[in-house]
Amino acid sequence: MKSSVLNQCLDRENKIMHRVFNFSPGPAMLPEAVLVQAQKEFLNWRETGMSVMEIGHRGEMFGEIAEKTEADVRELLSVPANYQILFLPGGAQLQFSLIPMNLLGEKKSADYMNTGIWSKKALDEGNRYGQMNEVGQMSEREGKAFIPPQEEWRLNSAATYLHYTPNETIEGIEFHWVPDSAGVPLVADMTSCIMSRKIDVSQFGVIYAGAQKNLGQAGITLVIVRDDLLGRASPWVPTILNWQTQATHHSLYNTPPTYAWYMMGLVLAWTKKQGGVAEFEKQSQKKSEKLYRYIDEREGFYVNRVHPSCRSRMNIPFSLVDESMTPVFLREAATAGLTYLKGHRLAGGLRASLYNGMPEAGVDALISFMSDFMRRFG
Amino acid sequence: MKSSVLNQCLDRENKIMHRVFNFSPGPAMLPEAVLVQAQKEFLNWRETGMSVMEIGHRGEMFGEIAEKTEADVRELLSVPANYQILFLPGGAQLQFSLIPMNLLGEKKSADYMNTGIWSKKALDEGNRYGQMNEVGQMSEREGKAFIPPQEEWRLNSAATYLHYTPNETIEGIEFHWVPDSAGVPLVADMTSCIMSRKIDVSQFGVIYAGAQKNLGQAGITLVIVRDDLLGRASPWVPTILNWQTQATHHSLYNTPPTYAWYMMGLVLAWTKKQGGVAEFEKQSQKKSEKLYRYIDEREGFYVNRVHPSCRSRMNIPFSLVDESMTPVFLREAATAGLTYLKGHRLAGGLRASLYNGMPEAGVDALISFMSDFMRRFG
Repeated sequence: MKSSVLNQCLDRENKIMHRVFNFSPGPAMLPEAVLVQAQKEFLNWRETGMSVMEIGHRGEMFGEIAEKTEADVRELLSVPANYQILFLPGGAQLQFSLIPMNLLGEKKSADYMNTGIWSKKALDEGNRYGQMNEVGQMSEREGKAFIPPQEEWRLNSAATYLHYTPNETIEGIEFHWVPDSAGVPLVADMTSCIMSRKIDVSQFGVIYAGAQKNLGQAGITLVIVRDDLLGRASPWVPTILNWQTQATHHSLYNTPPTYAWYMMGLVLAWTKKQGGVAEFEKQSQKKSEKLYRYIDEREGFYVNRVHPSCRSRMNIPFSLVDESMTPVFLREAATAGLTYLKGHRLAGGLRASLYNGMPEAGVDALISFMSDFMRRFG
Repeated sequence: MKSSVLNQCLDRENKIMHRVFNFSPGPAMLPEAVLVQAQKEFLNWRETGMSVMEIGHRGEMFGEIAEKTEADVRELLSVPANYQILFLPGGAQLQFSLIPMNLLGEKKSADYMNTGIWSKKALDEGNRYGQMNEVGQMSEREGKAFIPPQEEWRLNSAATYLHYTPNETIEGIEFHWVPDSAGVPLVADMTSCIMSRKIDVSQFGVIYAGAQKNLGQAGITLVIVRDDLLGRASPWVPTILNWQTQATHHSLYNTPPTYAWYMMGLVLAWTKKQGGVAEFEKQSQKKSEKLYRYIDEREGFYVNRVHPSCRSRMNIPFSLVDESMTPVFLREAATAGLTYLKGHRLAGGLRASLYNGMPEAGVDALISFMSDFMRRFG
């Protein structure tokens, strides 16, 4: 049997297969086309007779995957030449430690904006390595969660860096602007929003992102770091987590998570094919607006408590005004093929995550389900 | 089309597919049955309509994978109840830093046996965190590499731990005995030999193993640690790499490398099905003896330079007596479907790695090729 026959067979299966719309905050729904490609070549990548999992990380074969993935990140985000692109093991939380370990040097102090649970976790971990300054916290406007404007932030001009979280998955809060850090290197945890809007990388000192939302599978983290911020690591940083060491070795100092790296490569190739970051900016805008509009127009039944100026396009938390109905909603949604709509345990309620892998049809299906649910219980 | 039709289709394809015998030292050849199963359920795990990559790490579904994997490690290695089993991001080299960070406490000194490149790397990394004592080095006997007997080691009874590497992949050296650390916790890097022979876990304080040889794909590391060695972490250890924190949270403190964890689960289920560690001890013995015997009987053409008392069953380095023929050997072997036989760049020559995923038929094919090669060029 030729590979093309296998492909036809898988194609037929995938047309009929019961795939769900998965609204998980991450590990998240991946583009079906990417999964299908990975499945097809799972045992026999490019007719090598091997799975990508089985090939050595030092050879030409993996080298090609690694270089192509890096080149695609550079192209998709227009990463300037004076930035290194690293592929590191673990997730973003590991970088919560590695940012101070790699950047603080002798200064031992940095600024952190606290807009939610993830930025607060980064701040708390930072405080284990130095004296961190919380420059601000979320406030309220018109009874809704609101990111205070920058003139209210208490920035420290002597800070080693300013850390913030452009998108908070739990509260469903997103910056639609980039803070002006006044020359202090800006460090951004883009785990839950990377590749979903155009950015000007030159505004940042460090961008980092765990892969399991818009970049593939859990277990690998993308770090984009400006050259002049390398070489400042503390003597305590594990060698393989020293950004300088990994930059020098193109992230191949030790065995990297090769399969996760490959999956990121497939996701990025797909991202380019769909039209790149500009296209996903459009899609994210459209998908999230559709759902917010639906919720806002039914405020007596569904409610979102984030101010429109800082609503996340990626994670949309909402509640039933009658919260006792939440378990029924979740059970029936799952039956309808809409999974992982439960809100984070610290936030309660419901949440729909609309990463790049979620097609607009998923949002339509969710709204249709919500309408039906409201009709029956409203 | 029903799943069973897809399965038939994949089964037919896999019968005809050109799979190679992959002698890579790691990432290594995986059991075909494991890859086939992962491929079949790649887009639709247990009829959930999701890939394992897409399911949340906090839910019941992943919880089942996590618990089963842990239970299988415990069963396969008869891990006593007073040992925790952790699944951590990254590979064994990350543990080179984490061992001192998690164990040293105030003492700042430990013992390391240096038997090759990997144990030396662990020692060097250890020295960044304390004053490490090299208890011994490789020696020679009858012109061959030889692990000195323990009475020649310079052990320090005040050491926090004694670290050694039961199998060195580059030199092809293996301990066929367990050092007596006289009450000092014994720490073993079993990356390249775990699950290939019966061990008595109670002889060890810590066992750790990167997954990409006998446990699955790169990007996850198994750590088995005795309860009383937890809770000693230095203030510098990143929170998610603190063994105590991860033990408390069953390795789910943060998003773990879920897919790599799942693959480890499949490999362990397969390991059990084949007959467990005892079976692989037998197979490893048989496969390696066959190849060593073949090489030894042709010493004018092929040569292995390790003393029989400490030859590795997992990694068999050998050379052509006429080393100028090495590139020809490698090229022709690849054409014959025998890949990754090149020795490590620091060792040169050739190397055949015979992990659990390498069937005996692979060794037979290699010997047959070597015979043919010798006939033509000998």
